[in-house]
Amino acid sequence: MIKVAIVGGTGYTGVELLRLLTAHPQVELTAITSRALAGTPVAELFPSLRGHCDLAFCEPDPEQLGACDLVFFATPHGVAQAQVPALIERGVRVIDLSADFRLQDIPTWEQWYGQQHAAPELAQQAVYGLPEVNRADIAGAQLLACPGCYPTAIQLGWIPLLEAGLVDPEQLIASAASGASGAGRQGKTELLLAENSDNFRAYAASGHRHLPEIEQGLRRVQPDGSRAPRVTFVPHLLPMVRGIHATLFAKLQSSESTQELQQLFESRYRDEAFVDVLPVGSHPQTRSVRGTNMCRISVMQPQGRDTVLVLSVIDNLAKGASAQAVQSMNIMFGLNETLGLESPALLP
Amino acid sequence: MIKVAIVGGTGYTGVELLRLLTAHPQVELTAITSRALAGTPVAELFPSLRGHCDLAFCEPDPEQLGACDLVFFATPHGVAQAQVPALIERGVRVIDLSADFRLQDIPTWEQWYGQQHAAPELAQQAVYGLPEVNRADIAGAQLLACPGCYPTAIQLGWIPLLEAGLVDPEQLIASAASGASGAGRQGKTELLLAENSDNFRAYAASGHRHLPEIEQGLRRVQPDGSRAPRVTFVPHLLPMVRGIHATLFAKLQSSESTQELQQLFESRYRDEAFVDVLPVGSHPQTRSVRGTNMCRISVMQPQGRDTVLVLSVIDNLAKGASAQAVQSMNIMFGLNETLGLESPALLP
Amino acid sequence: MIKVAIVGGTGYTGVELLRLLTAHPQVELTAITSRALAGTPVAELFPSLRGHCDLAFCEPDPEQLGACDLVFFATPHGVAQAQVPALIERGVRVIDLSADFRLQDIPTWEQWYGQQHAAPELAQQAVYGLPEVNRADIAGAQLLACPGCYPTAIQLGWIPLLEAGLVDPEQLIASAASGASGAGRQGKTELLLAENSDNFRAYAASGHRHLPEIEQGLRRVQPDGSRAPRVTFVPHLLPMVRGIHATLFAKLQSSESTQELQQLFESRYRDEAFVDVLPVGSHPQTRSVRGTNMCRISVMQPQGRDTVLVLSVIDNLAKGASAQAVQSMNIMFGLNETLGLESPALLP
Amino acid sequence: MIKVAIVGGTGYTGVELLRLLTAHPQVELTAITSRALAGTPVAELFPSLRGHCDLAFCEPDPEQLGACDLVFFATPHGVAQAQVPALIERGVRVIDLSADFRLQDIPTWEQWYGQQHAAPELAQQAVYGLPEVNRADIAGAQLLACPGCYPTAIQLGWIPLLEAGLVDPEQLIASAASGASGAGRQGKTELLLAENSDNFRAYAASGHRHLPEIEQGLRRVQPDGSRAPRVTFVPHLLPMVRGIHATLFAKLQSSESTQELQQLFESRYRDEAFVDVLPVGSHPQTRSVRGTNMCRISVMQPQGRDTVLVLSVIDNLAKGASAQAVQSMNIMFGLNETLGLESPALLP
Repeated sequence: MIKVAIVGGTGYTGVELLRLLTAHPQVELTAITSRALAGTPVAELFPSLRGHCDLAFCEPDPEQLGACDLVFFATPHGVAQAQVPALIERGVRVIDLSADFRLQDIPTWEQWYGQQHAAPELAQQAVYGLPEVNRADIAGAQLLACPGCYPTAIQLGWIPLLEAGLVDPEQLIASAASGASGAGRQGKTELLLAENSDNFRAYAASGHRHLPEIEQGLRRVQPDGSRAPRVTFVPHLLPMVRGIHATLFAKLQSSESTQELQQLFESRYRDEAFVDVLPVGSHPQTRSVRGTNMCRISVMQPQGRDTVLVLSVIDNLAKGASAQAVQSMNIMFGLNETLGLESPALLP
Repeated sequence: MIKVAIVGGTGYTGVELLRLLTAHPQVELTAITSRALAGTPVAELFPSLRGHCDLAFCEPDPEQLGACDLVFFATPHGVAQAQVPALIERGVRVIDLSADFRLQDIPTWEQWYGQQHAAPELAQQAVYGLPEVNRADIAGAQLLACPGCYPTAIQLGWIPLLEAGLVDPEQLIASAASGASGAGRQGKTELLLAENSDNFRAYAASGHRHLPEIEQGLRRVQPDGSRAPRVTFVPHLLPMVRGIHATLFAKLQSSESTQELQQLFESRYRDEAFVDVLPVGSHPQTRSVRGTNMCRISVMQPQGRDTVLVLSVIDNLAKGASAQAVQSMNIMFGLNETLGLESPALLP
Repeated sequence: MIKVAIVGGTGYTGVELLRLLTAHPQVELTAITSRALAGTPVAELFPSLRGHCDLAFCEPDPEQLGACDLVFFATPHGVAQAQVPALIERGVRVIDLSADFRLQDIPTWEQWYGQQHAAPELAQQAVYGLPEVNRADIAGAQLLACPGCYPTAIQLGWIPLLEAGLVDPEQLIASAASGASGAGRQGKTELLLAENSDNFRAYAASGHRHLPEIEQGLRRVQPDGSRAPRVTFVPHLLPMVRGIHATLFAKLQSSESTQELQQLFESRYRDEAFVDVLPVGSHPQTRSVRGTNMCRISVMQPQGRDTVLVLSVIDNLAKGASAQAVQSMNIMFGLNETLGLESPALLP
Repeated sequence: MIKVAIVGGTGYTGVELLRLLTAHPQVELTAITSRALAGTPVAELFPSLRGHCDLAFCEPDPEQLGACDLVFFATPHGVAQAQVPALIERGVRVIDLSADFRLQDIPTWEQWYGQQHAAPELAQQAVYGLPEVNRADIAGAQLLACPGCYPTAIQLGWIPLLEAGLVDPEQLIASAASGASGAGRQGKTELLLAENSDNFRAYAASGHRHLPEIEQGLRRVQPDGSRAPRVTFVPHLLPMVRGIHATLFAKLQSSESTQELQQLFESRYRDEAFVDVLPVGSHPQTRSVRGTNMCRISVMQPQGRDTVLVLSVIDNLAKGASAQAVQSMNIMFGLNETLGLESPALLP
């Protein structure tokens, strides 16, 4: 059994981790911290966990965390970089669901997050936790940076095309939309049901923090990596709870048929348990992955022109955060990669 | 392994059964029938099942069904009563999720469903599948009638009060609301998203088919059973997918304190894995049971007056249909009652 | 033209007032106050008003307010009672949309709102603004207390029965549900879309502040008024923006036929522009009154038993708040009661 | 008063026309036809119109329609082209909300709609009813083809850029999303609330019928019109009722600053009552135009790169259909263009 603790469990990635870890056959959950709610039973905050989790939130205790095999951080950015170094020193492995260790270029991180990075050297060591790209590195990682939700959906959608050098990396366009759980559990007027139900809007269109992560990830998968990808990325807020849908446009550099594109995607993801390439002509639906670690993808070539369209859906809290973290945990600890992640989506 | 078939799997109770049975460790799913879609892969209709179910819908074949240990009917009313007798004769056990065998009084059934009952003698043998009331009978059932969604939420809410004789059975009021999946997967204008989103309405307030089932069930649990319960039952349609919320009012016949009521409920359901009595002062939320077989219940006494209020929530497709059917299957086949039904709710 | 100001215009009743008053042919809107947003253009906060309202929020200025014919208060409770006395003294008429002057019994008010009332004598003078009950008093009111949303839907549903003495006033049961806009525009976790979409729950079931207002109103309309009504009132939160649906149960004291009940309602509301009694067998939908001052009502007698069921719907921000305030304004200033309130509902 | 009839009033564009026309001060509504519902009062189908419309649906009667000044067609494609010629001959003016007369190239129409066009010569005479582009022609039109919903939002978003020749017309990308009312009122499984709530998906991504209309419209506004625009257009279905949001990407051919782009848009639409260019940095919300004839637009240049991003929102049933039809009617009959279209949006 892996001894596990969660730092910062009162948000949506926290409760999703709890849902998955309490049911995981190889995990012993020993602590879940929250300064604000220390002493409150977890199941009081999240009644869905009544009968599944007997823990109460507790103050973070270095001794307790240090005695774990693995600590998840489900905290706002800035927290993990302050607390992780001490854990790493003690030999504890860490999976950080926040943005703290996703970017390797520290000035870029500091520019987008508006603060100094507290552990720049660790950022260099951190392994980016997208198993479909760097499974081997994940296996040996001590510090794992779990990808953002948009970056997961978008990278998985474009990776086959960029690896094969089929599209112009400087003309990438991503129009993506997320359910409101992606914006977190904090009480903000702009996230109220009364503000967002029967409503749709873009946000942060002039620059979203996931942009540099997307461009970093796409750069790595190119055959030579010399051309810096340029992505126009527009996120939107959907009047629903869970799900990310990425609508991805790229310019073909050579003439490929729809069949060839389909085969490229199918062959790229043949051995991936959590990426499902849909048949030609399908449109993936976010509900088809609700609550699961799946990414479902369609590729098409509208009107037979030179723009290749990829549609990619994930659950923002699952493959976009907590379930992908569990997938990486499975890899890090030599377990079957799908352990605890086998349930089909809840549909309808 | 239990050899199982599903008759009529293209509706929402069908896909929910598939979600649960494909993940059930003791079930071998051998066939799922649909005349209209025979030949179509199940996962084409329900993309959430891609990778989980390789079956295609097939024509119902008496030989194939007859070779099963258990056949589920997830069909509109009228279908099971025509096909079940032949299966029963062959010794196959049957769980019917439709209304065909829920009422033991045949004239009542015929009045509410507007047609002649095709197997009235079987209706007498059928066991009503509410494990919290008649677990022992379920264990030995050959034909099990799975309760309706509203009747499950409502009976579980009132059973402790009626068993204890604390309330007037002739003054029962149930105001209940269901997510739209309760109305089925048929294309009807009145069920469109454009008709129901940002909208709320009652329906069938002058008489819903679940009323006689509710009254029949409540009659049985009374200490003497002599007084026929009279329920005013008003169902409503919620602008959401899953969940039933029952708001139940009854008149106390003696003076009980809130504490005594709370203790009554806690003690009644202490050994039930799927009924959760919330702490005093709580309000159950439908999402806290989403996708699960749980019923969560609160009991209170507003203003300390003589009306006792019970709030009861279930997932209409799970405890209100398919998961409850699996619970009964577990009992019928001597398995652990919670097998395959352990996952926490998807929240948010 | 009536010179009008609004105190506290940043909430939902505020923006709804602005929507109605900017289009009202007899109103000159001179000021809208907000300490927090003073200086911010109204249309910046509410882009729906771009091109319709050129005002900016301003600090409340006693001189400016004192020069108005009418001041609306769209503030949290406690604010109006502090500021209204000075305006009344200057001869300004006031319509208060908050709860400050709805209850005439001050100890009751203080008990439910947990604070001392700052203007108890004014509470006695205040006219309760339900035109269908006390239109004549409204015409001469200097201080008008606009009813709450639930109390409006519930009183209009029961008034015909209580006026006629047909039902037992001590056995009234109201199960009601509101869209999330009823809970206001403040950023609270429990009002997030991610917490409430695809979810339904009761709240404040052991006692909601609208209860004493409902019981006060129902007492007044009884033929003798001697029996204090006792209402069990359970509010619920709907996963939608606008609309209140009240499901009302009462016990008939004599035997009335459905036809007689229908006629009673039709005759009671024949001359009311904003109460619409639906044909026998109908179920009102909240969307059928969206954005309007209408209340639509159905009355029925399920199973021909002795419980009379009334279904009543309003738009919580319109007939439940701002549009009803405008209706009262029209009466107070001798205008046609429907002026500025004629638009049909937005459906779908 | 303009004598008006509506052919085919049982769909959403029909009820929206009724909402607007019953409140229009210069319109006398004389008939609304529906073969299927002939005899049924309009207000029975659409309870929002109780008290606003006393008409019943009637069989289409050539004499009655022929006696009108104006007939609206709110029918599926194929109907208007069969019935319009007779009306035109009698001198009746016609506004067709269907797709029948939107495309001037008949082979293109026949290819996309899969049937022979019944009145190709009329298609040549028909005026395309986008007032912001061809107001003068609309004034004199006898037969007006009302634009589609997506084409309205998309053309208004791109027109300033194409007129000014600033972007490459062959690299246009439109990712757009519509509320479910855009798909009509027919009972189809794929439009159920239970299928679409908490779900998001693209559809018809390989080719939607609005594509040729968009490309036709964009071709016309170019300075020389010689380069055929090529648009990649991906529509999506939103879990909400009303609203279209278009996210538009184009490649700048010269270097413009954000300020210059903003000025271009503001100057282009300065005199348009129904196009609102938002301040720099804003993101339009669909709810800000709900129920209105407004189009709200933002323009930006993410990361200062060479892709110009335009966000454009309309109400698909209003500016995307019925309200735009009324706007054209106002122009055709010499009325103030905004008559009957002045109400602010319903927000929240």
